[in-house]
Amino acid sequence: MTNPRHNVRDIFPATGTEITAKSWLTEAPLRMLMNNLHPDVAENPHELVVYGGIGRAARTWDDFDQIVACLRDLEDTETLLVQSGKPVGVFRTHKDAPRVLIANSNLVPHWATWEHFNELDKKGLAMYGQMTAGSWIYIGTQGIVQGTYETFAEAGRQHYDGDLTGKWILTAGLGGMGGAQPLAAVMAGACCLAVECDETRADFRIRTRYCDAKAQDLDAALSMIADWTAKGEAKSVALIGNAAEIFPELVRRMKTGDASVPNGRPDIVTDQTSAHDPVHGYLPLGWSVSEWRAKQESDPKSVEKAARASMKAHVAAMVDFWSAGVPTLDYGNNIRQVAKEEGLENAFAFPGFVPAYIRPLFCKGIGPFRWCALSGDPEDIYKTDAKMKELFPDNGHLHNWLDMARERIAFQGLPARICWIGLGDRHRAGLAFNEMVRKGELKAPVVIGRDHLDSGSVASPNRETEAMKDGSDAVSDWPLLNALLNCASGATWVSLHHGGGVGMGFSQHSGMVICCDGSEDADRRIGNVLWNDPATGVMRHADAGYDIAIDCAREHKLNLPAILK
Amino acid sequence: MTNPRHNVRDIFPATGTEITAKSWLTEAPLRMLMNNLHPDVAENPHELVVYGGIGRAARTWDDFDQIVACLRDLEDTETLLVQSGKPVGVFRTHKDAPRVLIANSNLVPHWATWEHFNELDKKGLAMYGQMTAGSWIYIGTQGIVQGTYETFAEAGRQHYDGDLTGKWILTAGLGGMGGAQPLAAVMAGACCLAVECDETRADFRIRTRYCDAKAQDLDAALSMIADWTAKGEAKSVALIGNAAEIFPELVRRMKTGDASVPNGRPDIVTDQTSAHDPVHGYLPLGWSVSEWRAKQESDPKSVEKAARASMKAHVAAMVDFWSAGVPTLDYGNNIRQVAKEEGLENAFAFPGFVPAYIRPLFCKGIGPFRWCALSGDPEDIYKTDAKMKELFPDNGHLHNWLDMARERIAFQGLPARICWIGLGDRHRAGLAFNEMVRKGELKAPVVIGRDHLDSGSVASPNRETEAMKDGSDAVSDWPLLNALLNCASGATWVSLHHGGGVGMGFSQHSGMVICCDGSEDADRRIGNVLWNDPATGVMRHADAGYDIAIDCAREHKLNLPAILK
Ligand SMILES: NC(=O)c1ccc[n+]([C@@H]2O[C@H](COP(=O)([O-])OP(=O)(O)OC[C@H]3O[C@@H](n4cnc5c(N)ncnc54)[C@H](O)[C@@H]3O)[C@@H](O)[C@H]2O)c1
Ligand SMILES: NC(=O)c1ccc[n+]([C@@H]2O[C@H](COP(=O)([O-])OP(=O)(O)OC[C@H]3O[C@@H](n4cnc5c(N)ncnc54)[C@H](O)[C@@H]3O)[C@@H](O)[C@H]2O)c1
Repeated sequence: MTNPRHNVRDIFPATGTEITAKSWLTEAPLRMLMNNLHPDVAENPHELVVYGGIGRAARTWDDFDQIVACLRDLEDTETLLVQSGKPVGVFRTHKDAPRVLIANSNLVPHWATWEHFNELDKKGLAMYGQMTAGSWIYIGTQGIVQGTYETFAEAGRQHYDGDLTGKWILTAGLGGMGGAQPLAAVMAGACCLAVECDETRADFRIRTRYCDAKAQDLDAALSMIADWTAKGEAKSVALIGNAAEIFPELVRRMKTGDASVPNGRPDIVTDQTSAHDPVHGYLPLGWSVSEWRAKQESDPKSVEKAARASMKAHVAAMVDFWSAGVPTLDYGNNIRQVAKEEGLENAFAFPGFVPAYIRPLFCKGIGPFRWCALSGDPEDIYKTDAKMKELFPDNGHLHNWLDMARERIAFQGLPARICWIGLGDRHRAGLAFNEMVRKGELKAPVVIGRDHLDSGSVASPNRETEAMKDGSDAVSDWPLLNALLNCASGATWVSLHHGGGVGMGFSQHSGMVICCDGSEDADRRIGNVLWNDPATGVMRHADAGYDIAIDCAREHKLNLPAILK
Repeated sequence: MTNPRHNVRDIFPATGTEITAKSWLTEAPLRMLMNNLHPDVAENPHELVVYGGIGRAARTWDDFDQIVACLRDLEDTETLLVQSGKPVGVFRTHKDAPRVLIANSNLVPHWATWEHFNELDKKGLAMYGQMTAGSWIYIGTQGIVQGTYETFAEAGRQHYDGDLTGKWILTAGLGGMGGAQPLAAVMAGACCLAVECDETRADFRIRTRYCDAKAQDLDAALSMIADWTAKGEAKSVALIGNAAEIFPELVRRMKTGDASVPNGRPDIVTDQTSAHDPVHGYLPLGWSVSEWRAKQESDPKSVEKAARASMKAHVAAMVDFWSAGVPTLDYGNNIRQVAKEEGLENAFAFPGFVPAYIRPLFCKGIGPFRWCALSGDPEDIYKTDAKMKELFPDNGHLHNWLDMARERIAFQGLPARICWIGLGDRHRAGLAFNEMVRKGELKAPVVIGRDHLDSGSVASPNRETEAMKDGSDAVSDWPLLNALLNCASGATWVSLHHGGGVGMGFSQHSGMVICCDGSEDADRRIGNVLWNDPATGVMRHADAGYDIAIDCAREHKLNLPAILK
């Protein structure tokens, strides 16, 4: 039997102004689905894997082909339903309704485990959608760069008076998301040593200019870092190795005052291996990568067992760094939870990045807003960059970010831009872009979306909603209301996922994308969606009692009946 | 401190044609919310409890008042968001969008337990929405009568050649839903002995004509049953007692051939105590009702422990009946799961009612369709009854049901009708009712909705999706897509719940209601919603491989791309 998930085809989205769907509202999801699988975008496109362990864009290649056929055929009063990457139905709705509705990997809580998921997956009944993989708004590693940059910069502000010159960050994992770390560190002014076990991943980051150098052993990597930090240069190195070995070894050297360790210790420690998925995401200590891949199929249980034990050692080292006073943070892969389950009592000693650095932004509806030029022309993005500066003349941080992004970030697939903005700004950007499309200033429509890791779209108690002020971390009414409201506001596609980022059982979240086709209808929809979507984030944080959110809601005159009584 | 959930106000929905909201689309949810709390409808309205353990209509009385105020103020291009019974936001949408979006009791899976829910509930952060309680389409015990009737009738067909004369059904629980059992049994031609520990509940059923008689001890109840079965009369008795005591005692008498047991054994055994909620739903053996209620507040852990042990004894007796050849069924309260967790290995020996009797209906999108006359006038319902007969002249089963319902079922609160119909019929009924409103044949608009226990709206592996053909029991993408599609199709309000029926962790489900205000816009929305909603049920069952569903999908020309390839 052939593997329905394997294929050697290379997928490229159409570019330019000719469309094969019946309108831009359906051409948009078509191009974005294909863009998710673009060879420069996806981590493993021949297996339909976009990023984040086994985060896929479609359940099988047959399903991919049928989704494409459906989208080409879809009328502007019809809606396609996609269930865990499979196109299951086309229904008559109306023109202001989403054209695609997606639900991925959702499981009834009592059965919401990797074990049950994998069983279903094996039977062809499931697909892991991660966050933007199965909801067709992944834009390559750049999608996470700014979030990582904001996090490192904020850590710099909190711990090093805002100056990361001569500092270095220790991390691991150079996958689709983790690959942003070296570049984000460098943008924030720090050096970065990133441990990555799979050399092809490291090479991918170097090829796409996310990472500067590669080392085959710890001493070589440390001496590069020593050199750069001494000179005050911000540069990055990928160390080929296993984090579960390297992290404890560095703790040992730090504790013994070994001279090989620049500054005597790393200045910030984090990790972005795919620990959320113990079968596919974390190389066990002592295993080769090929042995690991083979056993994922032949003996997943033994992989899981070994991976979990290794993660415990890895987190124990992180706790040691934290105890020695090194700013240490969980970067949203749920590795503390695994270590805790494996018996490491103080696994949650160090905080997650959201409560530590990001929540004040979420309180204002600020998060990883992004847009993508369906024309395929980088000029369209540069024009929107300029428009952003024009719209927000006083936002120096944003200008600075856009300049750095343009200079440092290579586009992958369709040109796109990420830019953390919030309530009150998002709809202005959207309306301005739509006007540019209408006036022909852009070659073709753009789509606007965001990560599921956003202010109002996620419940994830070990990550985005860790340690909420009122204890409501696990309440997932919020992302569900967010999805329903985006659906009711006229988003072009809307998705509901389970298990993104932190794995099965640990999160529920929603995505939305809206197409700026230049029409007046789009103006109306953009005005609603790009206001309502961040507003739900402000609402959720105001309800939890955050003053910043309550002030933001008042300032923007949100109508939050039982919250702002 | 006063209890924000307690109040002595009596709530009655407005009736007649004067409205206090800005249109019927908002007057409708207003009346239905109030109807849920009508003294003849709700089980414990002063505590906001509608039915099903602690299934509530609003989180607190303050929230109730604010929801009312919001609905009165809401424009026809605005949408109110309700988060676990609390009105959290009003947002601008458009006229074809739902006016209210509701999410109740949803928890991230790893935290989706009663323990965590109760902790949140205590802090004022949660509300249990059950199914139709928190989504404002509960219509009293009548809402379940037909489902129970269809189940008993089908059991009669499968086990007793379609004739239940002289047979008797043993059950327990005469709450909001369980109270339908005696009447449904009698309608199906059988006698019924229902054990109920709370005498006020039994009295409620007798007062509302759901049950015929009451007995204070087992012998008295059995002698009534003996008398009726001998005469071939179908009648019912409520026995005041604890099921955990009565069921094992009846097993003992059956096994010893005790002459007090009519027919030597019950002919069908089931149960509808609120076993899904071990703190509030099941009286422990040997406890008084008042002691139980007091300890629910003061010592919930000890209540839970004792209740769970009693449920084990209760289920063990049901397994004994099953083993002795008595048709025995779980009636959707998750009691087998609890018994299993308590160590009763063969707790799942007897089946749930859905796979045993109901699934073939679900395959055609047939389920508990219902409508309610906002005028408050029973005549409006009688006219719709007549319209149904006119629309479906050849459906003898439906005619028979409508006749019985009219004769036997007393309205509670706003007059309403339940009628199990499916894909192809629901939208016809809706369009016909809307036309009657338009022409002034009905005094005021009607709302049309359904239970969350329906063909396409629920994932509940111990109940509605137990033992699915393909093993997809726990996949909850389906109810999420159902809610999103109803939202996109123009339902008047849409809800997403967790834990209804079977309790925290065990189900996810969605509700929808559409208002027939007589407008042409409503025609369009009804045409989409009442087609798409049952169609998602056919789709879900077709995807799981049921031939009936596949045939139904083909017959109705559904466009199910990857299912009907
Ligand atoms: N913080 C955020 O904003 C954020 C956003 C998205 C995803 N994430 C999480 O970050 C993690 C990484 O995401 P991704 O998309 O990069 O995943 P990915 O699967 O594409 O990459 C993971 C990388 O880790 C490497 N790796 C695995 N085990 C290793 C080990 N023991 N030592 C060294 N390297 C190892 C793999 O070879 C791979 O390259 C995931 O858990 C994801 O959910 C965080
Ligand atoms: N099968 C279905 O279609 C369906 C539909 C809805 C609800 N349900 C489930 O049925 C159950 C009952 O629902 P409800 O709305 O009637 O709940 P309810 O809480 O209103 O009523 C439960 C009744 O059981 C009684 N009871 C509790 N413990 C008892 C004991 N040990 N012995 C005798 N009586 C006892 C209570 O006094 C109460 O009257 C729930 O678990 C609900 O989820 C099933």
